[in-house]
Amino acid sequence: MRLATVRVTDAPTSETVAAVHTGEGWRRLGSPDLSAFLAGGGVPEADGDVLASGRPVLPLPHPGKVVCCGLNYADHIAETGREQPAYPTLFAKYADTLVGPDDDIRVPCTAQVDWEAELAVVVGHHLRHADRETAGRAIAGYTVANDISLRDWQYRTGQWFQGKAWDRTTPVGPVVVTPDEVDPIAGLDISCRVNGELVQHASTRTLVFDAAALLAYVSTFTALRPGDLVLTGTPGGVGVAREPQVFLGDGDVVETEIAGIGTLRNTIRTDPAPSPSREG
Amino acid sequence: MRLATVRVTDAPTSETVAAVHTGEGWRRLGSPDLSAFLAGGGVPEADGDVLASGRPVLPLPHPGKVVCCGLNYADHIAETGREQPAYPTLFAKYADTLVGPDDDIRVPCTAQVDWEAELAVVVGHHLRHADRETAGRAIAGYTVANDISLRDWQYRTGQWFQGKAWDRTTPVGPVVVTPDEVDPIAGLDISCRVNGELVQHASTRTLVFDAAALLAYVSTFTALRPGDLVLTGTPGGVGVAREPQVFLGDGDVVETEIAGIGTLRNTIRTDPAPSPSREG
Repeated sequence: MRLATVRVTDAPTSETVAAVHTGEGWRRLGSPDLSAFLAGGGVPEADGDVLASGRPVLPLPHPGKVVCCGLNYADHIAETGREQPAYPTLFAKYADTLVGPDDDIRVPCTAQVDWEAELAVVVGHHLRHADRETAGRAIAGYTVANDISLRDWQYRTGQWFQGKAWDRTTPVGPVVVTPDEVDPIAGLDISCRVNGELVQHASTRTLVFDAAALLAYVSTFTALRPGDLVLTGTPGGVGVAREPQVFLGDGDVVETEIAGIGTLRNTIRTDPAPSPSREG
Repeated sequence: MRLATVRVTDAPTSETVAAVHTGEGWRRLGSPDLSAFLAGGGVPEADGDVLASGRPVLPLPHPGKVVCCGLNYADHIAETGREQPAYPTLFAKYADTLVGPDDDIRVPCTAQVDWEAELAVVVGHHLRHADRETAGRAIAGYTVANDISLRDWQYRTGQWFQGKAWDRTTPVGPVVVTPDEVDPIAGLDISCRVNGELVQHASTRTLVFDAAALLAYVSTFTALRPGDLVLTGTPGGVGVAREPQVFLGDGDVVETEIAGIGTLRNTIRTDPAPSPSREG
């Protein structure tokens, strides 16, 4: 199944609905979005009507937790000069950090803005102290994300958080595909293009820690709940690791694609930099 | 004012209420807890009745964001061998990470569990791109926290998050004191005792980044809302920096005190370690 939160474009209001894609189009699932749908147990309405038109937006607008893994593809680990990890490197984002699959991404004009194409895992069941098998069964589906990073802020201190948790900078979507339709361990092509030029291209089969392993690991220390997101890390090819370094600027278009799931298309828009007095 | 979320001990149910301390005792504010009270604008009920009895519990059970600052006291920075920072080192916890002022703290028996007495700032108004003055006016009050850390997990990778975000390990409370009654810049005595022995003792006047500076800085990248918490970092004296290192074990009692606010008293309880197969 291909699930989405869809904006009903011919509705008088800007209503969104959780929906499943069928041969006829998007069919209502009976919830306002996939966050509510999964929180309610993920049971579709028996006779949801088919929408005349609809556009996928941010599929999970209200995740309680967005846990991200860094350094999880062998080639990206190599380009950062590090060794293969024994444990996943984890950090947090917020629901506020997320934007939709074709939304603009607003950043300060001074920031060193970089791309990170990622497979995102959607949690379907409550998990705590889960083993790998239990965690695997709790996966509601997979979607596409780009862990857009402000490298100058990320590296201001040893903790990456302040370069990773800028409001409305991480696009997610366009759809959530259930595990019966895609298998990241067998390998899904993941790629990122900037203004049409391919900058990242890898397969999810080279992930060091796969989806089930990450969910089990995180559940050792904190509960995961339906609608939570786990981002699995990015492959090689990021701008900060290039020589010379490359960063995104105003008007640049970032396309993030995973075969079998879909494509994000986001334009970078720069704002005047925050004044020094506003940085503390 | 001294505000709290109070469990009504003589009620037939385990009801909690937001309350303010008066000469007669705890008076109801008209909300089930301080998270709801602050989200509702922080306007007290005009004629809330005085409770016959009540015990302060976790004052803010539902913060949307818990942002933590590390390395923010000159002596603690020195004991970790680092230089004075130009920027605050920030990381995240969850609402799930918090426990009440006298709750037990459950950790795996194998973990290297350490104390970190901290001043916590409670956000009272929405903040985004705030300057220092605006941020200062948005402070609803101050409370006590202990950023209990699992050092072995914290240092498994470069990112501290997985050692800092264990469910129900960060005690907060017992009360929130409004800024007209306490001034951390003038200096509040902050201390931590383990089984009665003083292990940390400092003044909040030696904070590198004060409360208003931290709120302004965080608001540069993400919105803060009423009821959010910002932990300001810990002074010197943590167990991991001692020679030999000292960690907390089953039955150890940690008391965390800030003069003019109150004292947390939490007992460490250890569980069997998670099995290796459950760690990924």
